[in-house]
Order: sequence, then structure tokens, then C-alpha cells
Amino acid sequence: MQLNLNQTHHEIGDFEAIFQDLTEILQRPNSEGLNLFPELFLTGYPLQDLPLQKSFIQEYMQLLEDINLWSERRPKSNKEQLALLGGLNYHFSDQGQLLKIENVMYSLKPGEKLKVVAVKQLLPTYDLYEEKKYFSAGKETSILEFQGKKIGLLICEDMWFSHLHAHDPVRELQKLAPLDLCINLSASPYHLQKFDERLKRANEVAELLKCPVAYVNRVGFEDEILFDGQSFLTDGKSLVLKADLFKKDFLNTILPKFQSNGIAYPEQPTSSWSTIFYQRLTEDKKRLRPLTDTECLEILNALIFSLQEYAQKTNMQKFLVALSGGMDSALVLTIAKLALTKNQQLEAVFMPGFFSSSLSYDLSLDLCRNLGIKLTTFPIKFIHSTIRNNYRDTFQNELKGLADENIQSRLRGALIYARSNDTGAMVINTSNKSELAVGYSTLYGDSVGALSILGDLYKTEVFELAKFINKKYPGIIPADIIARPPSAELREDQKDEDSLLPYPELDALLEHLLSYQTSPEDLKKLGFKEKDIQKIHSLWQRSEYKRKQFCPIVKIKHKSFGFGYRNPILKKTFTF
Amino acid sequence: MQLNLNQTHHEIGDFEAIFQDLTEILQRPNSEGLNLFPELFLTGYPLQDLPLQKSFIQEYMQLLEDINLWSERRPKSNKEQLALLGGLNYHFSDQGQLLKIENVMYSLKPGEKLKVVAVKQLLPTYDLYEEKKYFSAGKETSILEFQGKKIGLLICEDMWFSHLHAHDPVRELQKLAPLDLCINLSASPYHLQKFDERLKRANEVAELLKCPVAYVNRVGFEDEILFDGQSFLTDGKSLVLKADLFKKDFLNTILPKFQSNGIAYPEQPTSSWSTIFYQRLTEDKKRLRPLTDTECLEILNALIFSLQEYAQKTNMQKFLVALSGGMDSALVLTIAKLALTKNQQLEAVFMPGFFSSSLSYDLSLDLCRNLGIKLTTFPIKFIHSTIRNNYRDTFQNELKGLADENIQSRLRGALIYARSNDTGAMVINTSNKSELAVGYSTLYGDSVGALSILGDLYKTEVFELAKFINKKYPGIIPADIIARPPSAELREDQKDEDSLLPYPELDALLEHLLSYQTSPEDLKKLGFKEKDIQKIHSLWQRSEYKRKQFCPIVKIKHKSFGFGYRNPILKKTFTF
Repeated sequence: MQLNLNQTHHEIGDFEAIFQDLTEILQRPNSEGLNLFPELFLTGYPLQDLPLQKSFIQEYMQLLEDINLWSERRPKSNKEQLALLGGLNYHFSDQGQLLKIENVMYSLKPGEKLKVVAVKQLLPTYDLYEEKKYFSAGKETSILEFQGKKIGLLICEDMWFSHLHAHDPVRELQKLAPLDLCINLSASPYHLQKFDERLKRANEVAELLKCPVAYVNRVGFEDEILFDGQSFLTDGKSLVLKADLFKKDFLNTILPKFQSNGIAYPEQPTSSWSTIFYQRLTEDKKRLRPLTDTECLEILNALIFSLQEYAQKTNMQKFLVALSGGMDSALVLTIAKLALTKNQQLEAVFMPGFFSSSLSYDLSLDLCRNLGIKLTTFPIKFIHSTIRNNYRDTFQNELKGLADENIQSRLRGALIYARSNDTGAMVINTSNKSELAVGYSTLYGDSVGALSILGDLYKTEVFELAKFINKKYPGIIPADIIARPPSAELREDQKDEDSLLPYPELDALLEHLLSYQTSPEDLKKLGFKEKDIQKIHSLWQRSEYKRKQFCPIVKIKHKSFGFGYRNPILKKTFTF
Repeated sequence: MQLNLNQTHHEIGDFEAIFQDLTEILQRPNSEGLNLFPELFLTGYPLQDLPLQKSFIQEYMQLLEDINLWSERRPKSNKEQLALLGGLNYHFSDQGQLLKIENVMYSLKPGEKLKVVAVKQLLPTYDLYEEKKYFSAGKETSILEFQGKKIGLLICEDMWFSHLHAHDPVRELQKLAPLDLCINLSASPYHLQKFDERLKRANEVAELLKCPVAYVNRVGFEDEILFDGQSFLTDGKSLVLKADLFKKDFLNTILPKFQSNGIAYPEQPTSSWSTIFYQRLTEDKKRLRPLTDTECLEILNALIFSLQEYAQKTNMQKFLVALSGGMDSALVLTIAKLALTKNQQLEAVFMPGFFSSSLSYDLSLDLCRNLGIKLTTFPIKFIHSTIRNNYRDTFQNELKGLADENIQSRLRGALIYARSNDTGAMVINTSNKSELAVGYSTLYGDSVGALSILGDLYKTEVFELAKFINKKYPGIIPADIIARPPSAELREDQKDEDSLLPYPELDALLEHLLSYQTSPEDLKKLGFKEKDIQKIHSLWQRSEYKRKQFCPIVKIKHKSFGFGYRNPILKKTFTF
């Protein structure tokens, strides 16, 4: 049996493109055999409230009708093709009232209509998932026969954290053994090195079911969530096929024979889902493990892909970065340059104020020379002075302290958006995860932007990624940008680490708090000082209002500020 | 049997206050009999991710221990008191791993420990609810005997939309009849006139179970969601007790006898949950029904309460409003003034630019005189000119069109926040629901603020509320502010309705799209023009990125921009 893994890439709700691609793929010369498409191939994922909107429902129903009409006209004689694809299955009452929606697998054969062959059984609701909010769960584990082969059918979560759900569809498939193949259609959100987790799990499933496992994933960037593709086929022991990262891809092969890997299918774990996540904490619990080159390359690919997806889906051809002379904005500009395609433009603006050092200008200029980008300098000193004078005249009070610091940042925010309004360019945000976590940024100031590409990387990781890029493109980022101590340059001699902790320690502390919910007591045992824990915990909890008004952040880690992070602004802040 | 309805008011996670209030209430002279407290009284609601945080869990476990220690020391002889209160029930493995969390009802008797007597069975996940994300559902419907009376136990959703769930706890209680009382402990989010819905439902339940129904609700404002209290007791026919709106309140009475109201308990409805919502559309589907005086008063109370809650929980004693001379900011300032307590301060700043009319200044001054607030005028013309000149020098391009409009708005945003940083005042946002829905505002400009109090009111409703306030406090808002056509005054002769539709029509169209998901075809049948539908639908869909970065909005309506509204930024925008 020929097996085709169709790793597709569509915008959510782009029914026209979905129809065209489906019909084109199934008419290719090499499309005999079993054709697999991702979970919710027919709509995209995650859809949020869209499936409840009547206009969306109508368009989707039209798509199903169009596919059926097209398929029924195909000659039935071609019995050697079967497509399995993900979609929504709506149930209405006789009066047309919406009763329920299921996340299903459809089969499609030449001459026939779409037919539901499996309903997703395990609906995740942890972290960024909200499937129980929209979907009703299937009750039965399904198999299907094609060309004499028995195929087990799973949709995404069905092969995953069964201990969080009432039953285990994989163990139920085992009861239907022997199988020749198990397939999993997925829309699996990306996080760093997630492919390894998927392959490990697929091999466990293969070993239990004694058959190869085919895994098909979608590609895309949806507000903040990446879908990386990396579809694959394992015979249990070896990777037979592996598709591209962040690109549509079409692979085919002949169904391989199962090979035992000898790894036992794990007993139901009693641990929580977060403990199986990718570990970034080292033996020295006061530091994060540095990113490897492989990880840096994967992150770089993810950020470039996200930026391009956002620009394309919002019809923007220009990017705009406010350079400060510091590490974050330099890295953002460099990544934007690496992402740039032929027809796109990138602009850098440096907006020096009273406290900007000449080194900041020199380094910004060096960077732009290296990248081949024109640097525009827009001094804010005179406008800042004017505001100071007008403020004093108006309120009989000097603009000073925090107010004078923040006005510089907000003025830069307003000016970079004036440029954006003028040229139609997309402003890329330059915040990192460390500053977001402790609220070390100015709301409506340096926090502005359409998309944050570094907001899921701690400051130490920003430096690691910059160093990696400098290895790949020697010297592209001036070494002195990487070497200088981080500063917001909003007052004399300001250094981030004077207000916060040294970044390696801050980042480890934040990773404990955000990803592992480590308690203050346990943090003390790990060697953090009580006053540091208290301070950072409090800054984190009190800055929720800033994150509430932040732009979408490209999700890189298992735990990110975004859909999977929900923290009330108003609450009694825990003090100890 | 004496019945005490304890309508409490606590900050989320304020375990100290919760312990103090619980023990104080149960030691009052009149606390004999059955004492009812709200759902999740012991923690607050909604908690979002807090129940997963180890520090939160530790503090909560300490609270349970403290309550048990206190209760066990009380003389057992006092058998005439029983408290029923909502809380979380954690289940851990032997290794201390979190297995599940239930939303439960505890009983507490003098001399005894807290004991789980009911587990919430129906966990809502529609709209703003996410309970299946955090909680595991109970399987059994529970009753309890006290002083010879049989009491049916329900937690919030348990008495509501059973057609959305697998079973109906109310019908299961019926099987355990006869009952002497049915209680419902709730944390029921407020929307306009929700009390009427609750009472109607309670009477249906009373009729089925042939017993009185006691309903206890919490009070509070949590980021955007209001809890109004309005706890009550119905004998089936008449309201025996009704507690205050947006205030803690303690009521007691003797258990009344059931009175039949003759209304049959409805068969399982097949309609979706949204159709039972409070209808704001009139017979003329191109207009919203105007707000009644009763509704206006309720809204005014809700907004005043929200503002006070936000300020109190974030320790702010000062409020700041940027006045434009238009209706929205005038109403915000007026409401803030009405909300002001003795120790609080309110400041108004008018920031005229090149396109601000002198009428805007005169009306702002009139308003401030009426309210007894000093008006500070901070002209932005000179700063705006300076920016224009500097921009032209920098980019060799005039700042014009949208860029020149928006810079004024963003400059005002930066300046009002300079004042906020200087004085520590909380900036109140002035946007309304109509402009939010179509993106008719400047991101980081007029959209700034800590809290939006008008963001769930359409522009036509903003006018209605202003007129109501003027009836209650004659002439407090200058009539000319209400009479003048809305304008952003960012260019010559700008009028909102030139860019959009007449507000009454726009608002009706938006209500159809947002609350009822009316399809474009159906909108045409209702008399809206195709080009208007197309334009407004498109503006709504394309402005999601602005709403993503907006501050919390006080929820007034059944469908609001907030937790219960999820719309992807990136999607194929439907055109027809």
C-alpha cells in the first residue's frame, strides 16, 4: 500500500484554497493509495469562536458540498485511492439549531461523498487548549480497512495524555489488533524540540500496537501558535519519513513492516502534564541550560516563519524596527533582515534621547551597515524638552523620575507608529520574556508592536540566539552590542541588573515560577535568596495589567505568555 | 428553621479576610440555623490558573486547616448551626502530585471539620466560563438533613442549562422528593437584568421540587466580570428575601412554606444558550431597544462599583480622565465623580490640538464646573508642530493623513500617562463598544487606560445613560455635549457618522453580529444594505488586533469583548 503524507499549509477559513489544494493533491499522478491530511484540514486550527459564527458555518457547509460534488463526479473505478482528512462535523436539530460540533476524521473516495470515520475522543482543555468549549467528544475508537490493511484511526490528543482523560484510545486500538498501520492526524502546536516528544510517543504506540505509525501535522502560524509540520512515519524502530519544518511538504512511500523497538508502552502516569515537558532547568537550579545550536536554529526558523506568516496574512510588505543600540532590538532587526523576501522592505529607526549614549548610535549604525539597511536617526531630545516645558507650564510641576523616563519611551512608541502609519509598515515589538515577566517595560512605550518575536525568550536566551546567529553569519551583529550591559537608557547610568537580578539568576527564577509553579519554599531550598524571590514574585504578579495589553507573542516554549497563561490582574498578591 | 443568606465580598485569594469573616459571621448572635455562603466562598471566582500555582495551593490548604482548628474547638453542644459554603477540593496522589480539583460545597458544624457534601456536576465552558479546564465534575446529586428538614444541594450551573450537559441535577433532586428546601450556592457573573432570569429559573425549580429555593451569590469585580450579589429566597410564588446589589449583605428569615406558582418546569430546550439571553433587539431590527431608567440605574451602579473595586484592589486613590469635549469622556468623568469617595481625587485634563473646536473647550469647562472639578488645559499644538517639523526633517516627508491624525491621539495618550506617572492616578479609558467593535480608535492613543467602563455600551447607549444621569442630577452634563454630533476632531470637520453608519443603525448591526451571529443573508432580509453589512463586518473582523491590546472592559451585557469573546486576529476574512 502506498502511503502519502500531505503536510498542508492554509490560512484559517481559507475554504477556496483548501478546496483547490485538496482536489489538486488527489489528482496528482502519484496520489494512489492512502492519502493523509492534518486534523481540521478543512478549517484550520485553533478556530476560537469562529465555528459558532453563522457566516463561518455557511461557508464551511458550502465547502463540504463542493467537495462532495467534485468527488461524486470522479470515476468510481479508481478504487485505489483513499483520503483521510480532518474537519468539523456539525449536528443541527430539525429546526436548524446547533446541537453539537465534533472534531472528526472524514474519508473520501473517488465517486463517493465525505464520510465520518472517526470522532476525536480526547479533547484537551489544559494550557492553550479549549476543545471542550467547542467540541463534543467521540465515544468509540475506530479502525478502517483499505487494500486489505487494517488501519487504526487517531486524532491528535487521542494518542497523548490519556491519564488526563477517562480512557485511552490507544489501548482500545490494541484490543482490535492486529493492525497494519496506526495513523494520527494532528494540528499539534509547536514548542522547542517537540518533534522528539512526538516521535518517542509514536514509537511507544507502535510498540503496543505492533504496527507502523504515520503522523501528519499542519503548518501555519495562528496569532501566536506555530504549527511546525514535521510529519513523519515510523516503523517502530526507525524514522521512515520526515517532512519539512514550517513548510508544506508531500512525502510518500510504501507501507513499511513493523520493527520492534523493545520500549514498553508506559503505564498510566500519575504525573501532571507539565512534568513531562521539555526540561530547561539544569542541575544548577539557579541557571537555565543554555540553548544548543540545534535549538537556536529551530528558534530562528520559527521566528522567521512567524514574521512572514503575520505579514502575509495581514497584507503587509514592510517591517519597521525601533533600534536602541541594545541587544533585543538588534536581534529583532537581524531576524527581520533574515526573514526578508525580495519584494519586502525593512526600515530601522534610532531615536536618541538625552540619556542615549553615543555608543548606542555607533553600534546601531554598525549593525545596519552589516545588514545593508539604511538607518534613520530621529532625535527626540527637542520634542522631549518641549514636552517637559509644556508639562511644567501646565501643571506647575517638573516632569521627573518615572514620569520623565516613561515619556521618552512613549514618545518613541508614538513616533514609530507615526512612521508606520505613514509607510504602512508593520512594527515588530522588541520585548523579551524576562522583561515581560517582571513588567520591566513601558506600557504604550517600548511595549508597542504588532507582533512580539522575542517575547518567549528570556534575556539570557536572546544573547544565546544572537551569538548563534553570529556564528552562522560571522560578525553580523557587532560584538559590542552583545558585550554591553543591558540598559533602558531612560536616565543617567541606568543598568537593568541594578533594578532586577543578574539575568542568569532572574531567568532561572522566572522559569521556576512560570513553567514549574515552584513554591517560594522550594525556591529557597534551591538557593535563591528570600528577598529576591519575594521581589520577583511580586513584580510578576503585579505586572499582569501590562501583559493584558501586550501584542501576540510567538510561542516557542512549552509555557508562554499567551493563550495558555491566565492570571487575574485583580487578586490578593501573595506575600511571605 | 432559621435561614441566613450570607452575601459576602472578598478579593480573590484574600484568605485572611475570608477566615476572619467566616468565623465572625458564624459567631454572631443571630447565626443559629442554616448559614449559606456563595460558591467558592473560600477562594473567590474566577480563579483562572491560580488553583494550579503551588503557592496558592499552600495558602489555601492553610486556610482549610485554620478553619478546621477553629471549628473543632467550638462547643459541639451548639448543634443548631450548620454552614454550607463553596470551596475547592484538591485530590493528590500519595506522591503529592495533583490529580484533580473539584468545585464543592462544604458543610461546617461547631466541633467538626469541613466536610464535602456536594460536588458541582455541571461545569460550564461556554462564553466566559472555563470550568472544565480546571475542575472535575461531580457525578451525584446530593441532599442533606438538618433540623429535620431535607435540603437539596446545587452549585450554580447545576440548576441552569442542563440541556448543554449530560444530565439535569434538578430532575435528579426531584427523584429524592419531598424536599423542604433547595439551595443554590453561586458565583454568578452579572449582566444587565440577570436577576430576573435567576428568579424565573428559581421559581421553575421550586415548582418542580415543591419547595422554596434559596440562592446565594457573591459580590465583587474580577478584572472585567461583576458579581452583583442580589441573593434571594423564593417560596415558589413570592420573593421572601432579596439582598443588595453590588454590596455585601446578610439576611435571615424562617424557612417559608412552598407556594405553587403553577409554572411548569420547562422540557429540555434544544435551543442554544445564547437564544435565552436578554433580548435587546426591538421589533424594528435596525434599532436597539432603548435602555429603560431601571436598566440605566443598574448600569450606573455597576460602573461605579467596578471603578471602586479596581482602584481599591490596585491601591489607587486618584483617577484621571482625558476630556475631549465629546460625550464619552464627559460621561466617564461624570461617573468617576459619582463614584468618588472622601479620600479620593479626580483630575480632568483637556488637551486641545489644531482641530479641537473652542466649543469642545467651553463644554469641558462647563462640565467640570458642574462637577466641581478643576479642569487643566494642556495644549498639544506646539508639541504636535514640533513633531511635524522633526518628522519632516528626519524622513523628508510631511506627516499627513492618518499618520498626522493618529499622532495627536498618541501624543494625548503619552501625556495623560505622564500625568498618571507623576501623580499616581489611574487613567480611566473612554472608549465605547461601537468604536471598539469597528476599530474606530487609535491604538496607544484614545484606547489607553487601566479600565474601560463604557466599553460594553454602544454609542447610542452612552447617550441614553448620559440622559438618565441628567434626569437624576438635572443638568449635570451640559446639554450641548449630548446634542453635538460625535467627532474625533483629528482633522477638519471630522464626523464619526461620515466614516461609519448612523449610530442607531450601526449599533443594531453590531448587536446582530456580536450577540446573535446573524448571517449576512439574514441581515439583508432585516433591511440592512449589503454595502453597509460588508463594510461593518469587515471593519469588525479586521480590527481584532486592536481589541487584543485593549484594557479590561466592565462586562454589562450578555455578550462582551472580554473572556467570553475569542476571535483570531489571523484568518481569511469572509467577503460576500
